[in-house]
Amino acid sequence: MRIVSLEVRDIRFPTSLSLDGSDAMHQKPDYSCAYVVLRTDSSDELEGCGLTFTNGRGTEIVVAAVRALEHLVVGRTLEEIKAGMRDFWRSLTSEDQLRWLGPEKGVIHLAAGAIVNAVWDLWAKTEGKPLYRLLVDLEPEQLVAAIDFRYIDDVLSEDEALGLLRAMRPGREERLAEIIETGYPAYTTSAGWLGYDDAKIVQLVNEAVEAGFTHLKMKVGQDVDADARRAKLIRDALGPSGVLMMDANQYWGVDEAIASMRVLGKYDPWWIEEPTSPDDVLGHARIRREIAPIRVATGEHVQNRVIFKQFFQAEAIDVCQIDACRVGGVNEVVAIILMAAKFGIPVCPHAGGVGLCEYVQHLAMFDYIAVSGSFDDRIVEWVDHLHEHFRNPAVVRDGRYIAPTAPGYSIEMLPSSLDRYEFPNGSEWSSPDLIAEAAGAT
Amino acid sequence: MRIVSLEVRDIRFPTSLSLDGSDAMHQKPDYSCAYVVLRTDSSDELEGCGLTFTNGRGTEIVVAAVRALEHLVVGRTLEEIKAGMRDFWRSLTSEDQLRWLGPEKGVIHLAAGAIVNAVWDLWAKTEGKPLYRLLVDLEPEQLVAAIDFRYIDDVLSEDEALGLLRAMRPGREERLAEIIETGYPAYTTSAGWLGYDDAKIVQLVNEAVEAGFTHLKMKVGQDVDADARRAKLIRDALGPSGVLMMDANQYWGVDEAIASMRVLGKYDPWWIEEPTSPDDVLGHARIRREIAPIRVATGEHVQNRVIFKQFFQAEAIDVCQIDACRVGGVNEVVAIILMAAKFGIPVCPHAGGVGLCEYVQHLAMFDYIAVSGSFDDRIVEWVDHLHEHFRNPAVVRDGRYIAPTAPGYSIEMLPSSLDRYEFPNGSEWSSPDLIAEAAGAT
Repeated sequence: MRIVSLEVRDIRFPTSLSLDGSDAMHQKPDYSCAYVVLRTDSSDELEGCGLTFTNGRGTEIVVAAVRALEHLVVGRTLEEIKAGMRDFWRSLTSEDQLRWLGPEKGVIHLAAGAIVNAVWDLWAKTEGKPLYRLLVDLEPEQLVAAIDFRYIDDVLSEDEALGLLRAMRPGREERLAEIIETGYPAYTTSAGWLGYDDAKIVQLVNEAVEAGFTHLKMKVGQDVDADARRAKLIRDALGPSGVLMMDANQYWGVDEAIASMRVLGKYDPWWIEEPTSPDDVLGHARIRREIAPIRVATGEHVQNRVIFKQFFQAEAIDVCQIDACRVGGVNEVVAIILMAAKFGIPVCPHAGGVGLCEYVQHLAMFDYIAVSGSFDDRIVEWVDHLHEHFRNPAVVRDGRYIAPTAPGYSIEMLPSSLDRYEFPNGSEWSSPDLIAEAAGAT
Repeated sequence: MRIVSLEVRDIRFPTSLSLDGSDAMHQKPDYSCAYVVLRTDSSDELEGCGLTFTNGRGTEIVVAAVRALEHLVVGRTLEEIKAGMRDFWRSLTSEDQLRWLGPEKGVIHLAAGAIVNAVWDLWAKTEGKPLYRLLVDLEPEQLVAAIDFRYIDDVLSEDEALGLLRAMRPGREERLAEIIETGYPAYTTSAGWLGYDDAKIVQLVNEAVEAGFTHLKMKVGQDVDADARRAKLIRDALGPSGVLMMDANQYWGVDEAIASMRVLGKYDPWWIEEPTSPDDVLGHARIRREIAPIRVATGEHVQNRVIFKQFFQAEAIDVCQIDACRVGGVNEVVAIILMAAKFGIPVCPHAGGVGLCEYVQHLAMFDYIAVSGSFDDRIVEWVDHLHEHFRNPAVVRDGRYIAPTAPGYSIEMLPSSLDRYEFPNGSEWSSPDLIAEAAGAT
């Protein structure tokens, strides 16, 4: 099966109108994505779909980056990619001229992630399996052959990675059955966006508890007094047994994070997420030491396996929040999951956005069945919006992700949604005022 | 004076044809840039020029990123930008939606750097001064007001930055006179590209020594035996008193870097540059400990002040190689120079590429006159190519950069060069085969 063409589209949802997704650093996000389709010459018209989540403006830059990488995937057969997954991955992430723009970070890495994920979607579809099943069913040798150990082999060798995977082969069928039976625990962020007023927050907390959630996350950062007031509101509505997480979205400096968490610690947060710059490994390490026992989480903006490696080495985080798009797709996520296992750090994927819930459910289930074998301190983010645009949306029931069953990576969007929300010509963007505002011109 | 429009162009030089610039990771670079012009309503038609260096393919992505930032600069007056330089800088580097694509790294940060540098070029031109003179002449309070201390205030407070600058006010006039009289020491990389054959290398080393260079850099990485052979060749031609630096351009993992430098140490390298991933602060720290007394240098791919901060904190480098484009322009470079001063690490700017020599001469001269006051262990890279495309090219004589005299940041290119090398429609790109190869299609 040969990949004969690549299509990439700029898809934007005007979420800034309702302040869904608002936090200390992203006050008016338009949740968006660069959406990739790999078309093949297969007789059953199989397509590989992938996307990378973006925040509105700038999606066109990621689209341009996908186009720049297109020549590295179009014309290849799925069989040759599968047989040389590591080399294929490196051909995208370390291309001779394009690597100058990263390397392995920012726009060019987001674009590589979308393409890499589309390839995995295609592979899973050809096997007729959801992606997590494909990953679980691969032999340890096959999975390790997909990982680029460059820059991480000082903490995780190929043999160690194999050892971690082989050690968890026993009990695999039982854990798979358990996941299919009971799903994977979720927490919700839908109640805690910064732009919501108090009445809406309380109402959403109550709805979340009624829906079966025991863990809930709130946004903090801009004003510690206001944060404390909102934390009290949420804590009161949640009750003392509920688990409350806080997320500062990189708003603070190191000293400010420590000072703020000394105030907000009163509301018993289970973790503080992104207390400062996602690049600041040593800063996180200091914050963690000084605010213990409050746990420190990060990951949605951690650019690649090299930075994650250092977060583990420096004992800078308690929670590893992998993101399905930020790093270079499935190959690199698996590398990070294996490093986390070696260092004993639980993986709690970042979700929300557009399609992230759809993606990361597969990664968390793979982690449970094939790597960690444990739910301890592990839970996956859930944000209940924009799922209606997906062909096989993620489903959370009674506070748990239901195991996906459709073949692929669950990321295929509905043609009608793509047409309506394509920027700037989709029908949802028909107002010139809306387009001008989205483009930042007003 | 109001900025009324922004023009950005994709300029590429087909350097891959001669293997100029070839190293272990960039084997066929086409040295390129996204070139920015800010036009104003001034009666004397003053323009601000800036560029960010790129490596061929992908320049169009940076061009798209510059366009995405355009609305943040067009329409502003130079006076309001000068009065609120810190806020202006943050408006570009932490824009609500665009920051998702970085933040402060990769494509979006390269684009911000080009625009920020164009603003400084414009400012210096309005003062009728070369950029380094403008920086030297600014009051410490003005300079510090241009710096965003977010994420670095745990190691450098505003007061400390002021203190560093004030402490070097005495002797400033003498150092300025000295720079104008004798220039700034340079080293050359022109002899050591990986793609050159032995005869060409020896000839270039001899020419460099004759031209007055005492310091010379060679590329290493792909094959330690071949590197050792070339190192012997260069060391023999250079003589024992010449200073030889080595540059691995990120080729190695941590363990591999240590092993390789144990072999190459025989040729007495003054530093090893980019021994591994530019993101790997802790990896550099371990390499540095294990290969001492060989010094470790990095910077051309260090994405921002947050990573530099950690390189200093972790005692991971001996040499700070700032890049004028990689980070967000002059504002962030000054922050890094001040942190380096606090930690006692010499700054040796990265140059070469397109326009980097033109840029960094100003930064090094500012560093000497206003911050470090010392030439000890300090030297600026010089690569002798592509200077003919600049209106006021950098000049190196007897191994020293001559102080620039023209107003601005020396980065304005000749209109004829811009027209000839614009990709893909400039006359130098008239061959369809050349365009196809440059686009990666062959």
